[in-house]
Amino acid sequence: MLPLLTRIDHVGIACRDLDAAIGRYEATFGLQVVSLEVNQEQGVREAMLAVGPVQLGGLRPGYVQLLEPLGPDTPVGRFLTRRGEGLHHVGYGVEDIGQALAAIGGRGVRLLDERPRHGSMGASIAFLHPADLGGVLTELVQAAGPA
Amino acid sequence: MLPLLTRIDHVGIACRDLDAAIGRYEATFGLQVVSLEVNQEQGVREAMLAVGPVQLGGLRPGYVQLLEPLGPDTPVGRFLTRRGEGLHHVGYGVEDIGQALAAIGGRGVRLLDERPRHGSMGASIAFLHPADLGGVLTELVQAAGPA
Repeated sequence: MLPLLTRIDHVGIACRDLDAAIGRYEATFGLQVVSLEVNQEQGVREAMLAVGPVQLGGLRPGYVQLLEPLGPDTPVGRFLTRRGEGLHHVGYGVEDIGQALAAIGGRGVRLLDERPRHGSMGASIAFLHPADLGGVLTELVQAAGPA
Repeated sequence: MLPLLTRIDHVGIACRDLDAAIGRYEATFGLQVVSLEVNQEQGVREAMLAVGPVQLGGLRPGYVQLLEPLGPDTPVGRFLTRRGEGLHHVGYGVEDIGQALAAIGGRGVRLLDERPRHGSMGASIAFLHPADLGGVLTELVQAAGPA
């Protein structure tokens, strides 16, 4: 079977105060924000902080993705109520998200998104059901540029 | 401030049955196990599955690290009792773990390991306190080969 995943794209971290979380990652590790946006569809305000060289041999770097919910009745808001701040999901790079979803759906893993949605920095993304992946909310990411 | 982190090294995932978890990641994503070991000091049996090319331009790839506790009274065993299966920690690459610990300790983040310990695949590792990093158990990894 051909490997579907090209890299660890990001770790998604739920926080109550995005600005405080950004400040913590900047001050502790020297990470820098490369994107800051609001995603109404997903109910979050979010920041992407690049880990490692931003472009090394044309590769997209990994990111710390900090997520602050827009309200309590959003996926990240409910996560914070239930579990508190911390690791929320992991995102893996794929070359072709349509092909990846078709392949994975055929392997008995439920797709939370049957079709790709709009993600950070113009990426196409889709989530897989954590109950079929050992409790891990898993995201596929086809980057806007070369994957 | 110079960035301390060179890459997302791995995501650590707590599971009850390592062989079942390996089977799931192999069957769903085509990932392959590149290391399988027991770490008595940390109380885990663990597998590393490479995500993406194993050596691309000399870079260490990212890994999914699957962790099965050796017993209930271990850090991962207690995590499973408290939270169930799922994301346990994130590990970031550093070039020099001694320098990184000294820098981070001076920035008000508590070190769970004052000195590096033995990690997967011969790496030197150390954990940082999740309470100082927004609930995220964070590991620093100096790989055995070039970082």
